[in-house]
Amino acid sequence: MATAEKGVVLLDLWVSMFGQRCRIALAEKGVEYEFREENIPEHKSPLLLKMNPIHKKIPVLIHDGKPVCESLIIVQYIDEVWTNNPLLPSDPYERAEARFWADLVDKKIYDCGSRLWKLKGEAQQEAKKEMIEVLKLLEDELGDKKYFGGEIFGFVDVALVPFTAWFYSYETCANFSIEEECPKLVAWGKRCMERESVAKSLHDPHKVYEFVCFLKKKFGVE
Amino acid sequence: MATAEKGVVLLDLWVSMFGQRCRIALAEKGVEYEFREENIPEHKSPLLLKMNPIHKKIPVLIHDGKPVCESLIIVQYIDEVWTNNPLLPSDPYERAEARFWADLVDKKIYDCGSRLWKLKGEAQQEAKKEMIEVLKLLEDELGDKKYFGGEIFGFVDVALVPFTAWFYSYETCANFSIEEECPKLVAWGKRCMERESVAKSLHDPHKVYEFVCFLKKKFGVE
Repeated sequence: MATAEKGVVLLDLWVSMFGQRCRIALAEKGVEYEFREENIPEHKSPLLLKMNPIHKKIPVLIHDGKPVCESLIIVQYIDEVWTNNPLLPSDPYERAEARFWADLVDKKIYDCGSRLWKLKGEAQQEAKKEMIEVLKLLEDELGDKKYFGGEIFGFVDVALVPFTAWFYSYETCANFSIEEECPKLVAWGKRCMERESVAKSLHDPHKVYEFVCFLKKKFGVE
Repeated sequence: MATAEKGVVLLDLWVSMFGQRCRIALAEKGVEYEFREENIPEHKSPLLLKMNPIHKKIPVLIHDGKPVCESLIIVQYIDEVWTNNPLLPSDPYERAEARFWADLVDKKIYDCGSRLWKLKGEAQQEAKKEMIEVLKLLEDELGDKKYFGGEIFGFVDVALVPFTAWFYSYETCANFSIEEECPKLVAWGKRCMERESVAKSLHDPHKVYEFVCFLKKKFGVE
């Protein structure tokens, strides 16, 4: 089996923001790897179930046959194995800050975003309010910096930027404008898209929206 | 203000498993610090709100006036600043594994544990089933090793061991025996308690249970 061999394999799904984090990190490091698209949510491959038996989720990075799971853990692993173009800063306090903001993205943005397309009425309004609050916190943290860590594209950028391809879907489902609320954050997203690592990992927001419509249908929303 | 001075301050609550992680890590490193008990859930001090404005939660580690929040991020910070007695292994793959298990503890054990004392009937049974499943996964990972990382007390031990002081409360509220289900894990917990760092950070399970009864009353459970 390919995965018992030397090399890097990524089990992923094209539209996943968690998978995209790993793709961006691998691209920033210039690591060559085999991309294996999983047919989720329809079917989980035996390899995925074997490599991530606990969560049974993509992404999984398989390095020389050994799996690493959970996207932020994968990105840190990539950063520690391939030490060129560091994503985390070297200063412990700055590292803790970067981990804090990436953790906030994990705890809030995905969940809020899902509620934006899954829910209606008051519950959706509540999710929208929360989403704007969290995005404003992130925008405050970004301030006038080029990237979250300053001049260098890093860990928080990797953690957050895949969600920007979902902004159009969030806005369309819940009828609001993220650019109006958080212009600096939207400008940062465009700046990130100028990097090849990001541009080749993210997808057209309209294609993402088509996927969201497919999910809505699947879950009987509307 | 003391927190603008040099030194280490921990904003904490005696019974918190998240705070205890930080206390254990600081003790393992031999770091002296000022412990400031927060009167939670009654009252959050202005200092806590200032130092953790986003989550407004303990623990917060204040180092030379600068706050670090979220317990696993704090433990990693402590491990990176005070490099004696490392808690995370040096090998990137072993580091990723340690982070994976600590993350699983964060994602599952606290939530399941809270449902064990907050809920009744079928919902409580469901939480019990989930808790046993997760504890068995952890027991499988531990196997016959002394600690999760092998011979050396480390990151996963720090992340999980504070919950052992809550086991009695979980068992009493939901009527089951963790020792029957996971004897190796319970033996590991006792082994950890032989370390001074752990013994002085954890509290008598009966005192924890009194606190749980106080919470049950407060939240109108039963």
